[in-house]
Amino acid sequence: MTMKEWKFKENQNLKTASAFSIKRVLDDVKNNVNPSDERPVIPFSHGDPSSFSCFRTTQVAEDAVVDALCSANFNGYAPKGGALQARRAIAEYLSINLPYELSTDDVYVTLGAKQAIEIVLSSLRRPGANILLPKPGYPAYDALSILNHIEVRHFDLLQEKTWEVDLEGVEKLADDKTVAMVIINPGNPCGNVFTHAHLQKIAETARRLGILVIADEAYAHLTFGRNSFVPMGVFGSIVPILTLGSLSKRWIVPGWRLGWIARNDPDGVLKESGFVECIKRSLGTNTEAATFIQAAVPQILEKTTDDFFVKIIDILRKDADTCYECLKEISCFTCLQKPEGSLFLMAKLDLSNLEGINDDMDFCSKLAKEESVILLPGFVLRMKNWVRVTFAIEPSALEDGLARIKAFCERHATKQ
Amino acid sequence: MTMKEWKFKENQNLKTASAFSIKRVLDDVKNNVNPSDERPVIPFSHGDPSSFSCFRTTQVAEDAVVDALCSANFNGYAPKGGALQARRAIAEYLSINLPYELSTDDVYVTLGAKQAIEIVLSSLRRPGANILLPKPGYPAYDALSILNHIEVRHFDLLQEKTWEVDLEGVEKLADDKTVAMVIINPGNPCGNVFTHAHLQKIAETARRLGILVIADEAYAHLTFGRNSFVPMGVFGSIVPILTLGSLSKRWIVPGWRLGWIARNDPDGVLKESGFVECIKRSLGTNTEAATFIQAAVPQILEKTTDDFFVKIIDILRKDADTCYECLKEISCFTCLQKPEGSLFLMAKLDLSNLEGINDDMDFCSKLAKEESVILLPGFVLRMKNWVRVTFAIEPSALEDGLARIKAFCERHATKQ
Ligand SMILES: Cc1ncc(COP(=O)(O)O)c(C=O)c1O
Ligand SMILES: Cc1ncc(COP(=O)(O)O)c(C=O)c1O
Repeated sequence: MTMKEWKFKENQNLKTASAFSIKRVLDDVKNNVNPSDERPVIPFSHGDPSSFSCFRTTQVAEDAVVDALCSANFNGYAPKGGALQARRAIAEYLSINLPYELSTDDVYVTLGAKQAIEIVLSSLRRPGANILLPKPGYPAYDALSILNHIEVRHFDLLQEKTWEVDLEGVEKLADDKTVAMVIINPGNPCGNVFTHAHLQKIAETARRLGILVIADEAYAHLTFGRNSFVPMGVFGSIVPILTLGSLSKRWIVPGWRLGWIARNDPDGVLKESGFVECIKRSLGTNTEAATFIQAAVPQILEKTTDDFFVKIIDILRKDADTCYECLKEISCFTCLQKPEGSLFLMAKLDLSNLEGINDDMDFCSKLAKEESVILLPGFVLRMKNWVRVTFAIEPSALEDGLARIKAFCERHATKQ
Repeated sequence: MTMKEWKFKENQNLKTASAFSIKRVLDDVKNNVNPSDERPVIPFSHGDPSSFSCFRTTQVAEDAVVDALCSANFNGYAPKGGALQARRAIAEYLSINLPYELSTDDVYVTLGAKQAIEIVLSSLRRPGANILLPKPGYPAYDALSILNHIEVRHFDLLQEKTWEVDLEGVEKLADDKTVAMVIINPGNPCGNVFTHAHLQKIAETARRLGILVIADEAYAHLTFGRNSFVPMGVFGSIVPILTLGSLSKRWIVPGWRLGWIARNDPDGVLKESGFVECIKRSLGTNTEAATFIQAAVPQILEKTTDDFFVKIIDILRKDADTCYECLKEISCFTCLQKPEGSLFLMAKLDLSNLEGINDDMDFCSKLAKEESVILLPGFVLRMKNWVRVTFAIEPSALEDGLARIKAFCERHATKQ
């Protein structure tokens, strides 16, 4: 039999949305790796260091999950919005760094920050809405906005100003159909960390425009430079903030799929506006994080000791330094800034210093082929001819990979 | 500050979709429970017996998850579509009951059958499409079809024919924009189990209409009557079948959120049609099941011994008998059929035998108030003045609850 022809024609919306997929682009890059190269593949590409033993999560977290599972009290469906004890624990955890207290009601448990994005965007959906996203940014926002029929407008992060938000640009882009702006802090992909003063200016701008701020804090507390991490929620009385976070990066357990949405809205603006109802509806049509993992959240958040965090930050700081110092010496990269947070940095390709390399994708493909090193081409982040480098890997692998990049660039350098 | 007014007006689509929520309706019913009633609340309402100790899952499953977690090999992000070892194990598990072999490629791991529904419906989405759903059925199909802008058309399950599909009705409803029909077998909410012959007729009808069959087998193997479970995939060479399943019900771990989509399509019709690409895109914009739970799937599927399944089926059979025999004697219920599978039965209210009860919602609300017993009003399943009874609870709670229902009905019986 044949199914009726029209039915399986491309679903155009899904097709457009899935163009913004880091995974897809990385698969294309990885396909170039030469299988006869016996050296290990070096993944400078993916924000997931969990496979390296020095990045193993804390025993506290593992034990908490095992205990919850073996109690057999958490095999059933979780309530919509999350298990109460998890919501309460997350509210307390986030409140430590805020000038006011979040309540259990202000927090929803999600399947990682990824589902938090999905839920927030689907509850913002309405005819004609647009959203302001950072460029460069995290492509899931583009994909999920498109799927939710929210028009995407990009504001710049200013490389020459340590990747701060171009607030004038934001004011120009916004109109009366703008529902929200997104910031990612600490920054993926730029490795920057916003100052208290800059975050306050963002809040004031959003207030003037009458739009929500979605603060993606997936990399919260992963900072190792001048600026320490300030949660956007600090400015919740200037403008309502939806903070998205997860265990994925700080605890290095992205496979556990445990995240949250927090309503930083001490004046109740969102509640009055009916937006809370929209979030609840959106939660209702989505599925929940595994119940026993939710039940482990209080122990994980309360019992993890500082030595774990300190150890991880130390590795990240050294990795960031090593990576920055090495790439700085390679003439085909420009516009480097020393990363101060998250797991990434952005480097601009100087194509005039490279022979036979057409663009970022070409660079990454040939690098994969010749050196089994994987970088993310910037075009998927709307930064053509840049690359994103994930430095958060085992230090020895980092040095090996950097040496290979150097060799590659020297080999392809324009002859003087 | 106030957010701009128009922004938080109702998102109409989300509002319509969330009207089809069992949880919401049950919350409304439960709100009637009298807090000063000291008896335990009896939940005849929700397909999740995991909180009763006689329904505890097998040690094999718990151990498998603990082992995967403690290996620390599965803390990272899972690949899109699922971990290979999980996909392979599910393919083998399903193939046992099929006349052909599924391959790893034919299976996608999902966050329970719930996300399987979401992914399948979002990949079927295209302008003008419609889908045929059973009535009564499972409201998530209605909600997620609406969210995906797929028009919903209902065919009847025929009470007088052991809840078989009204195939003539299906033929009348289908047109050239119909993309698929859904069957749920074993049946939620009717507790029926389709025969081999009836499933074959369904396949032949779908083939004639040129539409896919989505076979929801969330209750696979949970049968205890005349008909044993036949997977719809058996008929995959008549028409392509997408089978949805999960660990939730057979292993009584709905909180683990582990399910699957299997393409039963031995002739490759779906692959040629481009539909596989649509599914992949849809997977790409969704998030994955926890990686260590995925990694436990091979052990769970291969090592669970028959005595666990036999024990559970024995309890369900006895529960079903007890429930049916008791309700049959209560004059306010009619149209009862002895359940042969799943966890549910449907009973029609005979309002003429009840005084001061307006409809199913009124019946359930007053029952909750006076007896702390929770039933699901049929209207949410589009069966006004029916109720759904979940008999899968601890036997002593079942008897207690049935006695309370009986007392309630006697108290409210029309005086002769
Ligand atoms: C900026 C940002 N937000 C959200 C996420 C999603 O993280 P998760 O769903 O693992 O919490 C990521 C993951 O890389 C990210 O980089
Ligand atoms: C018919 C049917 N399909 C799918 C599901 C979803 O099950 P899960 O997501 O737990 O696998 C249910 C749950 O009750 C159901 O009754």
